[in-house]
Amino acid sequence: MPINRQWILKSRPSGMVSTDNLAYRESDMPNTELNDGEVLVRNKIFACMPAMRTWMNADSEYFPPIPLGAPVTAPAVAEVVTSNNPRFKAGTLVSGLTGWEDYSLVSKNNFFISLLPEGIDPLDALTILGGNAITAYFGLLKVGEPKDGETVVVTGAAGSTGSLVCQIAKIKGCRVIGIAGGPEKCKWLLDEANIDAAIDYKSEDVAARLKELCPKGVDVFFDNVGGTIMQDVIDQMAMYGRCVMCGQIAHYNTPGPAPGPRDMFRVISHRLRIQGFISSDFMKDRKEALTDLSAWARAGKLAHQVDMREGFKNLPETYFELFSGGNNGTLLLKVDEA
Amino acid sequence: MPINRQWILKSRPSGMVSTDNLAYRESDMPNTELNDGEVLVRNKIFACMPAMRTWMNADSEYFPPIPLGAPVTAPAVAEVVTSNNPRFKAGTLVSGLTGWEDYSLVSKNNFFISLLPEGIDPLDALTILGGNAITAYFGLLKVGEPKDGETVVVTGAAGSTGSLVCQIAKIKGCRVIGIAGGPEKCKWLLDEANIDAAIDYKSEDVAARLKELCPKGVDVFFDNVGGTIMQDVIDQMAMYGRCVMCGQIAHYNTPGPAPGPRDMFRVISHRLRIQGFISSDFMKDRKEALTDLSAWARAGKLAHQVDMREGFKNLPETYFELFSGGNNGTLLLKVDEA
Repeated sequence: MPINRQWILKSRPSGMVSTDNLAYRESDMPNTELNDGEVLVRNKIFACMPAMRTWMNADSEYFPPIPLGAPVTAPAVAEVVTSNNPRFKAGTLVSGLTGWEDYSLVSKNNFFISLLPEGIDPLDALTILGGNAITAYFGLLKVGEPKDGETVVVTGAAGSTGSLVCQIAKIKGCRVIGIAGGPEKCKWLLDEANIDAAIDYKSEDVAARLKELCPKGVDVFFDNVGGTIMQDVIDQMAMYGRCVMCGQIAHYNTPGPAPGPRDMFRVISHRLRIQGFISSDFMKDRKEALTDLSAWARAGKLAHQVDMREGFKNLPETYFELFSGGNNGTLLLKVDEA
Repeated sequence: MPINRQWILKSRPSGMVSTDNLAYRESDMPNTELNDGEVLVRNKIFACMPAMRTWMNADSEYFPPIPLGAPVTAPAVAEVVTSNNPRFKAGTLVSGLTGWEDYSLVSKNNFFISLLPEGIDPLDALTILGGNAITAYFGLLKVGEPKDGETVVVTGAAGSTGSLVCQIAKIKGCRVIGIAGGPEKCKWLLDEANIDAAIDYKSEDVAARLKELCPKGVDVFFDNVGGTIMQDVIDQMAMYGRCVMCGQIAHYNTPGPAPGPRDMFRVISHRLRIQGFISSDFMKDRKEALTDLSAWARAGKLAHQVDMREGFKNLPETYFELFSGGNNGTLLLKVDEA
């Protein structure tokens, strides 16, 4: 019987997640005698996503906490090994949330997985047509409601979600300013994602640069980061500005809460709207999102960086790079043979 | 020629506004030879409104700052003395923004004033049909969007705007919890405004009481106050909760900015919407608001406390009571004869 390598959550991190919180384990492959509706899949590629860190907390608020002793929940592309579910035939590819292990048993009541549509590159299912892309699409368009000619500022702009927000905003006729860490990421944003300006938060004064670049203020702010950079952008919002709160990567590894805007009176005087969202709220419109994203991708309008790593054993160290900014674009890991 | 008593803004307050920032002056009545469109009015009743404090700042953001040396801008009911404007005949009553003086010259380009509709009690124009009522109506209904059965929390709940928010929320079928200072105000809210629960922030632990009273969270939060009480309520918001940011009275007399929510990650995980508004944004729907408010008032559904003071000379001291909570309901001042 094949072994099932697993990275399990051993203890809940209180600050920065580290190898201390995870344990490597070799288990038996799950039983192949499946109950009604069950599917056994073999994970091929994992996507490393910042929000997974919040699922490691006991009080994970919008998603069931990962149980202690269970593999870390993660987005993946996987192949169906055996199936007792007519929707999923053996040999087909699926994408969705599984776990850090070779084999995952997916039950009817389990996390959402879906068939990879025919003709779709499995990589696309974790990048330009992945959860990150759906998040970018719904967050920007349904929550941010950008209008032609408006100024859009994006944090984590070179990242998996942010880079797509930038480009969708350009497609919608906006002026786009991206905030990212380091000259390489900024160069990619200007040269490949074709945005209008980039701010390197590691070497520049974000507040001062925003004032220069947006003298009339920011109309839509898409935030993946939180912290003082978020506060700097909110200070620069224009009248009737919309702040789309998508992520708080600056705080996921910090115990204690993540402070909000510095000046609530400005929120009133400028009629700002600050709104949190999670892409699953918009799932009824998923088809619309995928249709648009596919069309834009085919038209060459969605540049994307894939930072592909390899080796199951390297999953934790690879994942941690999200928090030091060591990745360039969507951070994926290809599972090697056991 | 009659004298024109005035309270003018002598200097811009940096913290709590005090008599040092104001000066009493006796001027001549403005020239009665009016330019085209001008109206000379005699102020009869002034309303004391917290936001006036923000107009005293040099950087008053959503409203022209009161010029140094000019009378303090204030909502008033006034009588037309002479008019070169066909809309306003001598002897009729108007309401709108004038200034702390006996006589105000209102030009076409000046602040908004409007005729008091026939049959309307002048007091109503500053209370249940005043700017406070319009603010309550639009803020709660257009920004907060309460649904039947939802839980609504209001700060400054016994005040001019807050007390109407409470009662409109009750009319819309909501469960209403008011936060106010002192047992008298809480008693009025329970007995006269018929809300479901009141929290006395001066003697009770607001966060703990909110947890008790709203175990399933707060759906709509209408905030007039800001500060730690605002933070306590936002911490208790339910999924998809809406926070209507109307005022920040706790901060108007404090130099420096007014901090926002404690935990922005909760804003995301709970999909909260935090939105600033100013009632003038909704003025195209003013008629709808006044029709509904009048009907509710006639049906006895809008209890209102009027705290009527007297004497032009007492304007500053009366106004300052807003910030110590010395008023009970809408704070008005009747102008005596010079």
